[in-house]
Formats: sequence, structure tokens, C-alpha cells
Amino acid sequence: MSRRPVLAVVGGSASTEGATRDAEELGALAATRDWVVVTGGRAKGVMAAALKGARSRGGLTIGILPTAAEEVSPDADVAIISDMHEARNNVIVLTGNVVVACGVDGAGTASEVSLALKNRRHVVLLNASPEAIRFFETIAGEQRGLLHTAINAQEAMDCAEACLALSHRSDRR
Amino acid sequence: MSRRPVLAVVGGSASTEGATRDAEELGALAATRDWVVVTGGRAKGVMAAALKGARSRGGLTIGILPTAAEEVSPDADVAIISDMHEARNNVIVLTGNVVVACGVDGAGTASEVSLALKNRRHVVLLNASPEAIRFFETIAGEQRGLLHTAINAQEAMDCAEACLALSHRSDRR
Amino acid sequence: MSRRPVLAVVGGSASTEGATRDAEELGALAATRDWVVVTGGRAKGVMAAALKGARSRGGLTIGILPTAAEEVSPDADVAIISDMHEARNNVIVLTGNVVVACGVDGAGTASEVSLALKNRRHVVLLNASPEAIRFFETIAGEQRGLLHTAINAQEAMDCAEACLALSHRSDRR
Amino acid sequence: MSRRPVLAVVGGSASTEGATRDAEELGALAATRDWVVVTGGRAKGVMAAALKGARSRGGLTIGILPTAAEEVSPDADVAIISDMHEARNNVIVLTGNVVVACGVDGAGTASEVSLALKNRRHVVLLNASPEAIRFFETIAGEQRGLLHTAINAQEAMDCAEACLALSHRSDRR
Repeated sequence: MSRRPVLAVVGGSASTEGATRDAEELGALAATRDWVVVTGGRAKGVMAAALKGARSRGGLTIGILPTAAEEVSPDADVAIISDMHEARNNVIVLTGNVVVACGVDGAGTASEVSLALKNRRHVVLLNASPEAIRFFETIAGEQRGLLHTAINAQEAMDCAEACLALSHRSDRR
Repeated sequence: MSRRPVLAVVGGSASTEGATRDAEELGALAATRDWVVVTGGRAKGVMAAALKGARSRGGLTIGILPTAAEEVSPDADVAIISDMHEARNNVIVLTGNVVVACGVDGAGTASEVSLALKNRRHVVLLNASPEAIRFFETIAGEQRGLLHTAINAQEAMDCAEACLALSHRSDRR
Repeated sequence: MSRRPVLAVVGGSASTEGATRDAEELGALAATRDWVVVTGGRAKGVMAAALKGARSRGGLTIGILPTAAEEVSPDADVAIISDMHEARNNVIVLTGNVVVACGVDGAGTASEVSLALKNRRHVVLLNASPEAIRFFETIAGEQRGLLHTAINAQEAMDCAEACLALSHRSDRR
Repeated sequence: MSRRPVLAVVGGSASTEGATRDAEELGALAATRDWVVVTGGRAKGVMAAALKGARSRGGLTIGILPTAAEEVSPDADVAIISDMHEARNNVIVLTGNVVVACGVDGAGTASEVSLALKNRRHVVLLNASPEAIRFFETIAGEQRGLLHTAINAQEAMDCAEACLALSHRSDRR
């Protein structure tokens, strides 16, 4: 068995400059630490930026696309064609060992964070708004321990590694 | 053409007493006004309560189930078996002409409200927390006009009817 | 509990005249016997014909559509919007208590018969080609007992009722 | 742009010895020619054998799993968790630039070949039964040119490469 850890990076297709920069930096860090980077795979926003960062360090990059017609990010090594539109968000978060949201600026990202918690995945909110943090803390309920925050890519990646170690420990029990 | 309007009612499987009562009342009102009521179809919480209310007034009730193994609410006339787990939330909200969330207490409901906005569906937040209302207002962006609030089932149903009329008008343009 | 039996009727969107007539007759018979009729819901071929037949006898008709953009058959009471393209075929066959294929003329229908068998649903091949019957007999394996043939709508509907009775008996064991 | 070609290898989870050997050999050949190998990812039959063959030559291997609970093949580099049961067959065939079926022994594989044709993917039937070849020729219709047969892994891989070249040519038009 030598499955590699997968970092699912989610965020807006029309993300802010800050979120885009965070995503690219996070992708680069993930690749350096030998994580596979998975995103929604479109040639836009956080999805494209995270793949670009990972590719720049020789990382493996995978996009899980909403439809067969969608333009694929040029930095995706492999394009998984889900053809299930927004429902593919569930596949993205399930495929990640840990999910990092670069900003929670729109409804798509909000659905991904929600689905991640629902599926009991660790989620790191990177530079999320206070409203987003407060909301997800409110709804997390029993999944409260799965919700984390970070203020830069380095902190988010460190947190992801700690979450992965934690998951492995609880798997062994 | 005589397709009937569909009200998608979403909410927790372990909902509060208030949310459960709201859902049952809403289902009853929807049936009285000849809407079909669609929920996640499980024998629990808001899903079951809305179907129960609708059935009590002779309404048509449909559950869209996560898996074939799941126990179906006794008040569902028809069970649609999606077998796609949490991704079925996307099917529920797309199937509704309007979506009403009875409380936004957990991650599942949060994903449904998010997916509804992403798919440009009108959403009524019925007795949602201030944190939830503020969060969805923040992320709605261009979909801001699709987000509504209500403090009782009657108000939510009136709002749903107004949204439906609005959709029909914009379809005709 | 008063869930009504569901007949999933599958077949080509560009079906032959014979298959279209079979579908319409089958829909009418199903409605008469108080089955709900479910199809792919598009305004074409077998999907549309079965809904039309059922509607003509006052039956409840449901279409499970591939996308939100697709034109819906005018005879669907309710349109379930799966937004998962061909993968929605799996939802159609799982939702049926029994599946009837009106002709197996194309790849879409072949996928539906295959998915039905894979999900252990009873399937009636109505006026299928000898090649289709032979093929599905070959691959059915342990599901061989789930595969039936019929040469007219009446026979198909009688077979569906027998299959339903059989399923109920095995559920009780 | 440097997306790598993807070979989707499909076949039974309880495949014959011949089909398993074909799959392993095909996976090895695909890896040698720098294709990514994608299968259903379970630790059984053709799915596992193709990944094992590809991994033995240092190829990139991806499994698209039916559920989060399923045991993953030890030779998958990355596990995509679809959580949509049999509907994930549609994702597998859409993700492949070309699909090879190692035997068509069961309903799952029959659904994959059917969905591939429906989605206009080239399909190579490797050592399929005469009944299967005849059936798919009958239903292929306008997709007749997408259907190919082969009698060993080498021939199947050569055919896949020719299909890929053909797709690229028609994309450029």
C-alpha cells in the first residue's frame, strides 16, 4: 500500500487576489511535502491557482470537473470528468484526506465546506471571513473538532499534516 | 403542460422541536395550495415532518433518498433512490421550484442552502439563526435577491408563492 | 405506509414506432393498475410515450431528467432534476420496483438494463431483439432469475406485477 | 498543457483468469507508453489487476471508488471517492480517453461499455464473447465507429493509441 495523501483545495472560481495567492502557495507547499493536490479542475480562480502552484514544484495534480464540456486547467495532470455539475463538490471533498478552503466567498465553496463536515473530513478555513468562521462553528455540532482556521498557506499546510496524522491514529484504534 | 410546483423542504435529521413543527405546518400549507412536497425522504426530522404535514392534507409527497438501504419516511408517496449519499442534496434543491430551510442547524442543511443558491434557486430561511442569515447574505453575492427569510410557516409559504410567480415572469422574458 | 409501486419504463429517445406504441400502452396499463410511472422524462421517444399513456388514464407520472436544461415531457407531473447526465440512468432503475425496457435499440437503454441487473432489479425486456435477449441472458449470471421477456404491453405489465409480488415475498423472509 | 492520456480499464470484480491476466498485461503496457490507468479501484478482479500491472512499470494509477467504505486496491496511487455506487461507472468511462473492457462477463461491465458508447468514447472489447460483440454492434448505431475488438493486450493497447490519435485529429478540425 502506498496511497499518497490528498489535499483537496476549494474556493471560488472568481476568487479575490488574496485567495488566489493563498491557493497557489498552498499547492506549492503541498507538492513539496508530497501530497497530491485535487481541485475542481476548472481554468479559473482557486482551482487553477492551487494546481499551478503544485505543478510548479513537480506535484501530482488532479481536477474533478463538473462536466465534459468545461475548460480544464492547463496544470491538471489528470481530469476526472464527473458530469454531475455541482454534485461533484461532494466527490472533491470525499477524495481529500483533508480539505482547505481558500476564502469562503461564494455558495460553491460554502457547499464544499458543508459537505466536508457532513462527510467527517477535517477542514481548514484559510483566511475566511469572521462571518464564515462563526457560521461553521455554529453548525459543526459534533464535527466541531474537524474545523480549523489558518491565516496563511504555511499554517494551513501544517494543520493539514497534523489532521492527517490524527486520522491515521484514529484509524489504527 | 400541467407540471405542478414543487416545494423542496430541507433541514436536519435531528432537528429541534421548533424546526420539526415548522416543517410539518409548512408541508400542510404547501399541500393545501397544491404544491408537491419534496424532501430527503428519510424517516427522521424535518424530512419526515414536512412529508407528514403534506400527506395529512392529501398532498403528493416525494422523498429523494441518499441510498437504497435507508429507511424511507412512511409519508412518502414515492421514493426516488439516488444512491449518491450527500450528493443527493443537489438533486433535492434542483427539483424544487423554491427551497425552504427549516432551521440551518447542521452541515447537511448548510450544504443544501449553498447548493440552492449556487444553482440559482430561491431559498427561504425559516427561523434560521442570526449567524446563518448573516453568513448566507455575505456569500450570496449576485444571488442576493434569491435569499429570503421568514419567521413562520405561513410567511415562508407566501414567500415561496411570490418567488414562483417571479420565476415564471422572468422565464417569459 | 402507503408507498405506491413504481414502474420504471426505459427505452430510446429515438425509438421505433413499435417501441413507442408499446411504451404508451404500458404506461396506460400501469396507471390503470395504480402504479406510478417513472421515465427519463425527456420530451422524446419511449420516455415521453410512457408518461403520455399513464397520464391519459390519470396516473401519476415522474420524469428523472439528465440536466436542468433539458426539455421536460409535457406529461410529467413532477420533474426530478438529477443534473448528472447519463448517470441518472442509475437513479431511474433504482427507483423502479420493476424496470421494463421497450426495445433495447441503443446504448442508453443497454446501460439501463445493465444497471438494473447490477442493482438486482427485475427487468422485463419487451419486444427486444434476439441479440439483446441472448446477451443479457449471458451476462446475467446470478441475476438470471431477474430477467424476463414479453411480447406485448399486457404481458409486460402482468410480469411486472408478478415480480412485485415476488419481491414482497422475499422481503418478508 | 500537458494532460496525459487516460486509459479506463473496465471488467468484472470476479473476472476469469484470462480477463485478469489481460488486465494486468494491459496495465503494464499502458504505463510503459505513459498512459495513466484508471479503473473502478476496488481490490478485486480486473480493476485491481490493471492497476497492479501499471504500478509494476511505474505508471500512475487511479481508482474511482463506488463508496467511501469500499476496500481500495493496494496499487492505486490515488483513490477518487465518488460515493455514488454504480453511477460511478459513468465517471470512469468519461474520464478515459479510451475505454478497454477485459471481457464483458457481467452487468457492471455491460453498463460501462454501454455508457462509454452513449458518451461517445472509443471502446475496445478485449476477448469479449461473440454474444457481447454482436450485441454491442447491434446497438451502437451511429457510434458503430467507436466500437473495436482485440484478442490480446498488445492489440488492445495499439488500438487505444490509434483511437487517441483519431480523437486528437477530429478535435483539431
